[in-house]
Amino acid sequence: MEQYFLDLVKKRQSVRAYKTDAVEPEKIARCIEAARLSPSACNAQPWKFIVVDDQKIKNQIADLTTTKMVPMNHFTKQAPVHVVLVMENPNLTSFVGSVIRDKPFTLIDIGIAAVQFCLQASAEGLGTCMIGWFNEKKVKKLLNIPSSKRAVLVITLGYPEDDTIREKIRKPVEQIYSRNSY
Amino acid sequence: MEQYFLDLVKKRQSVRAYKTDAVEPEKIARCIEAARLSPSACNAQPWKFIVVDDQKIKNQIADLTTTKMVPMNHFTKQAPVHVVLVMENPNLTSFVGSVIRDKPFTLIDIGIAAVQFCLQASAEGLGTCMIGWFNEKKVKKLLNIPSSKRAVLVITLGYPEDDTIREKIRKPVEQIYSRNSY
Repeated sequence: MEQYFLDLVKKRQSVRAYKTDAVEPEKIARCIEAARLSPSACNAQPWKFIVVDDQKIKNQIADLTTTKMVPMNHFTKQAPVHVVLVMENPNLTSFVGSVIRDKPFTLIDIGIAAVQFCLQASAEGLGTCMIGWFNEKKVKKLLNIPSSKRAVLVITLGYPEDDTIREKIRKPVEQIYSRNSY
Repeated sequence: MEQYFLDLVKKRQSVRAYKTDAVEPEKIARCIEAARLSPSACNAQPWKFIVVDDQKIKNQIADLTTTKMVPMNHFTKQAPVHVVLVMENPNLTSFVGSVIRDKPFTLIDIGIAAVQFCLQASAEGLGTCMIGWFNEKKVKKLLNIPSSKRAVLVITLGYPEDDTIREKIRKPVEQIYSRNSY
């Protein structure tokens, strides 16, 4: 059991080439369920997942992740599903804690829920890519997201064109770990 | 394989009562490894994990998670290990993206790495609790963390006193999910 999760972590990778095959609704539902059960500060659960599988709307979102300045997201149109992750208001205790400690817990919570979604997708044989760079204003308008909310991430979802697990490029452990002192 | 991760997600819960048994170093190393392999915006990896297993220092940190205003963290002293998660500076592309899009990606990244640590701990039979409420200034001084950095989370780590998996209290799926529109 110790090894399973590490293997899943290695399997989850940013997928930038997708098959056009549709994704089974029950698989998407399990990804949402894995995210729904995420921990959050004061159990605030400040998230909403908008699953976009209408191809016309999905392609419009894909276009909004690509700009002249950042052309590298042109792959997104291949993915049959895009999931837009909206940051909801925290509850009162989480909000007060954030202000007093000057620490926006909701963004930490969003990261947690997003990766639990993506890890479940990997367990389902699906590929994902979390995208933070997109035209948020236009995405919000397109999906009728209230102007007071933030659309934080777009997650592409679909079957990967290539199942090869790439070696992850990461800092060596000595650089990100120490014991009893910084 | 689809079910394994959902089961692990259910198993991971905030543990607030610990056995005093020490935690095997190889288990801690695998938790760090699961966190090290986390995705992050522009692969910035803006995190450092300080494992505190010196009992004197650990107890001092435990004391700093408890205040008169928030007395509920008094359990932390039981946990034999505390892990302090420091937010490092992002790389240039992540920083520029954060500024232009007004979105602090590093906090999202910290959430991702923290939960990958905690999920591996659950896979190892260990319990964790992520704590965002503590006296950051004093924790930083105690662990020689540079003043320019943020200590974002304290994660308690140890064997749970009770292995019973509690039912998670979460919003119903209808409240956190919609399709093609907010």
